[in-house]
Amino acid sequence: MPVKKEKRLIALLSGPDRRGIVARLSGWIYERGGNIIHADQHRDQEEGIFFQRIEWDSGAGDLAAEAAAFKDEAAGQGMDAFVALPDHVPSFAIMVSRFTHCFHDLVLRWKSGEFSCRISGVISNHDTVRRDCEGYGIPFHQVSIDADNKAEVENRQLRFLQRDPVDFVVLARYMQVLSPEFLRALGCPVINIHHSFLPAFVGGRPYHQAHARGVKLIGATAHYATAVLDDGPIIHQDVVRVSHRHNVPSLIRKGRDLEKIVLSQAVAWQLEHRILVYGRKTVVFD
Amino acid sequence: MPVKKEKRLIALLSGPDRRGIVARLSGWIYERGGNIIHADQHRDQEEGIFFQRIEWDSGAGDLAAEAAAFKDEAAGQGMDAFVALPDHVPSFAIMVSRFTHCFHDLVLRWKSGEFSCRISGVISNHDTVRRDCEGYGIPFHQVSIDADNKAEVENRQLRFLQRDPVDFVVLARYMQVLSPEFLRALGCPVINIHHSFLPAFVGGRPYHQAHARGVKLIGATAHYATAVLDDGPIIHQDVVRVSHRHNVPSLIRKGRDLEKIVLSQAVAWQLEHRILVYGRKTVVFD
Amino acid sequence: MPVKKEKRLIALLSGPDRRGIVARLSGWIYERGGNIIHADQHRDQEEGIFFQRIEWDSGAGDLAAEAAAFKDEAAGQGMDAFVALPDHVPSFAIMVSRFTHCFHDLVLRWKSGEFSCRISGVISNHDTVRRDCEGYGIPFHQVSIDADNKAEVENRQLRFLQRDPVDFVVLARYMQVLSPEFLRALGCPVINIHHSFLPAFVGGRPYHQAHARGVKLIGATAHYATAVLDDGPIIHQDVVRVSHRHNVPSLIRKGRDLEKIVLSQAVAWQLEHRILVYGRKTVVFD
Amino acid sequence: MPVKKEKRLIALLSGPDRRGIVARLSGWIYERGGNIIHADQHRDQEEGIFFQRIEWDSGAGDLAAEAAAFKDEAAGQGMDAFVALPDHVPSFAIMVSRFTHCFHDLVLRWKSGEFSCRISGVISNHDTVRRDCEGYGIPFHQVSIDADNKAEVENRQLRFLQRDPVDFVVLARYMQVLSPEFLRALGCPVINIHHSFLPAFVGGRPYHQAHARGVKLIGATAHYATAVLDDGPIIHQDVVRVSHRHNVPSLIRKGRDLEKIVLSQAVAWQLEHRILVYGRKTVVFD
Repeated sequence: MPVKKEKRLIALLSGPDRRGIVARLSGWIYERGGNIIHADQHRDQEEGIFFQRIEWDSGAGDLAAEAAAFKDEAAGQGMDAFVALPDHVPSFAIMVSRFTHCFHDLVLRWKSGEFSCRISGVISNHDTVRRDCEGYGIPFHQVSIDADNKAEVENRQLRFLQRDPVDFVVLARYMQVLSPEFLRALGCPVINIHHSFLPAFVGGRPYHQAHARGVKLIGATAHYATAVLDDGPIIHQDVVRVSHRHNVPSLIRKGRDLEKIVLSQAVAWQLEHRILVYGRKTVVFD
Repeated sequence: MPVKKEKRLIALLSGPDRRGIVARLSGWIYERGGNIIHADQHRDQEEGIFFQRIEWDSGAGDLAAEAAAFKDEAAGQGMDAFVALPDHVPSFAIMVSRFTHCFHDLVLRWKSGEFSCRISGVISNHDTVRRDCEGYGIPFHQVSIDADNKAEVENRQLRFLQRDPVDFVVLARYMQVLSPEFLRALGCPVINIHHSFLPAFVGGRPYHQAHARGVKLIGATAHYATAVLDDGPIIHQDVVRVSHRHNVPSLIRKGRDLEKIVLSQAVAWQLEHRILVYGRKTVVFD
Repeated sequence: MPVKKEKRLIALLSGPDRRGIVARLSGWIYERGGNIIHADQHRDQEEGIFFQRIEWDSGAGDLAAEAAAFKDEAAGQGMDAFVALPDHVPSFAIMVSRFTHCFHDLVLRWKSGEFSCRISGVISNHDTVRRDCEGYGIPFHQVSIDADNKAEVENRQLRFLQRDPVDFVVLARYMQVLSPEFLRALGCPVINIHHSFLPAFVGGRPYHQAHARGVKLIGATAHYATAVLDDGPIIHQDVVRVSHRHNVPSLIRKGRDLEKIVLSQAVAWQLEHRILVYGRKTVVFD
Repeated sequence: MPVKKEKRLIALLSGPDRRGIVARLSGWIYERGGNIIHADQHRDQEEGIFFQRIEWDSGAGDLAAEAAAFKDEAAGQGMDAFVALPDHVPSFAIMVSRFTHCFHDLVLRWKSGEFSCRISGVISNHDTVRRDCEGYGIPFHQVSIDADNKAEVENRQLRFLQRDPVDFVVLARYMQVLSPEFLRALGCPVINIHHSFLPAFVGGRPYHQAHARGVKLIGATAHYATAVLDDGPIIHQDVVRVSHRHNVPSLIRKGRDLEKIVLSQAVAWQLEHRILVYGRKTVVFD
């Protein structure tokens, strides 16, 4: 059974739960000659919401039209649907500050073919990765942020990002808070990596906070950035064991691997259309 | 949306993969007034096999007839199906030797309501847990095994087990090899816990083997017992970190928690009809 | 090299760091015919504090006198020292409420010989474990707590605990806040298990809080109880992965194993004299 | 207490266990004005071997002479000792084949300052990383291996490695078996990463073997290469959970992160002189 990736559609759906929704949508696909390859679903029984991810090989000639027809069908069932077309190459931009391990990790995964995507550009308030970006052929935009020019800087960042629109933005240890206005104007998901197991140690210097509290695990959390700092829907988390032997620098060093693993996993799921957000939560069909 | 557990059917299906199978089965359920609560599926694309677990609230009055009708429908699609009825209380027997931590762990989970089942009896070649069984009201059968009486002992065990037929048997650190004849005559799944991360350290004294090899992780594996020692389909595995500081007794102590966690998880999945076996592998819809 | 456990002394030391402290204390032991079996040490370089755990086979005839001499020697070096004698059987009391899995876990570890100790008594505001205690021969004390009688109840609990003084008390899911007065009057360490990865989800119903926040890991934390709720020095923590599929009851079920593992590990370390507290932190020589 | 790293000596010792060894060596350091910063020790009680790692700030003017004196003192106690001088920058060479994720991971850790060392050269039987090496300024040596020229190729590799002697060699997914002669002639430790949790799945294509066996965990093992394939002393291991959903390519992808983490940890320990080998085992003072 060869996998014809060129005919593959992926839909993410959510809406009020109702009887028969699985039967209707799978029936619709089947009747039009499609073949479901993967399907995963979830019901939040408290909220009465239905979620589904369906991956199918379509029998249609015009896939864009087929995707639109599927969205109509889903809408008729009261569902919001997103459908990814096989010829769309997803793209994201990276924002990074002084710590560049997550940047390098993402770029190497992209270069090695692990991520099927484009990286449309890199924004930094330092010039540490300028030469790396040149080497990789990725547009690089440096900004100088001070207390007075935040709005203006964010406008320039927006213009840079909008020259080559992206599906999402990754804050790969970007140590500046983005304004609600910026997030709104950007209009796409922003994935942030926070170096603690949220909701513990919100805000600045979480490894210092962790050391002061004497925890025996440190963590990292990938989440969607929202207007409230470190409060957005959590995509992925992991932890690693530490002991009294670890001072702050060794927590920072140990945490780096965690940050890379957690952020790159979240980015992989985003690229593969595996995440649905509702309220302050996510459904991840991994 | 109250969960009407008394109308809940759970099906486990497998068979040759074919287009439209999801649509057909979900359509069948929908048309008969059922509501799918959970559905999970898997395609082994190398082998061309389709697997599914469906949990639905049936609209039928006679659930046994509905289950039979579903199995017919599945058979018509080339699928083997098992369907669990809501009024069936699954039951298992435990076989245990000298180390009783897994026995106590299983029984306490059952007593606390974590396992929805009956424990139909306990077989041991020691009398360590006789009084505990009496306290819990579980039939206890002691056997004395020596080199000469294995066949006879197995026959007595079979008779004990068949007085109150079980859905499956759990070897909770039962340190005797069961003969192929016994397994065949028993005719139900047998879940064993092996105290290593199989396929490493097959056979006896795996903690001694692990210590001699100087591994940095020890493991436990829950698997179905087959005629070949420690070779059956793996259900669940976990590991824990060890170091040069651990001698054999401390590996044994550390491994106990692992064995309990891994075995009880496998038993929970078995009770909830989450495991499908094919060849030497399992699909676990957790 | 047979281990003569009857001559084994274990010292826990801490004090201002100073040059030569390791040499002096190991020299002292050596000169008196002792043989160091294990030694572990830590320097908190920020605070300038030295910590050590030494386990040695003493050559002395009178071990109590030898322990006292060691404490004098340590005091001369500016160190506080605790020394455990081989013939002291440590003991603890358990306080438990409605959820009894940690209680059963501790008692079974004690019964199976995994814990070398006495369990001097059990206090509960329910009678769920009364019969189990009778079966095990452990004194049981039930209290009825309401808004008005907390001080009186705590006084009765103190009298019960003081009839057979304990080395420490374990709150095995005891769902009542202990007053600062009670903790002070008790005068021994109190180990609590909190069902979150502290400092996340302090206070009541942490699994509900975790579910509302949409975390991807749930945790458990064993810590010393202090006058500030869920704020005492952390001894041990662990986490387990969860997903959108877990509702609150399944978080509670999944968390139980975590709570047992984390609490029993903390108790084991306490029994083996492996924990030193300083400020809001612990040094655990595991 | 500022850490004077320029006076820091690190000793690794092992030898027949004897009473008083800790006291003698710490006394020796103290009397010569040294201050022990870290000390860790282990006794293998079955084998009667004592192991120790001591890190101390020496009061001596000539550190090389002090190190030699320490080794004499240790030899007088029957101990083999290695002593690292603070001005020695350790170095290693990398051998890599077609899969370059471990190579990139090691080099980025070195570049970011996480590894305090030199990378003296890279050998590959492919030219995939030639340009990266040029960019980093690391000498690169490509070899063409076929059935007939193995001995000759190994000779050329030896000459390349011996131009700039290294403390150890890292096989970062080098898919060629090294001959016993090569290992002997090289005369330094060789760290290999094997992509399974050894001793499971020795030899080629371990992810294929793991998939065929249906394991629920895949692993990676860093070990010292010896003349027997995948049999050398294990330094570090880790695992990650997999399921029926993972086919061989996804095991390979998932395993990559594991391989990087496990190998880089082993290299970090080697650089920090934390590993002692005895027989087929390691003592790792982490």
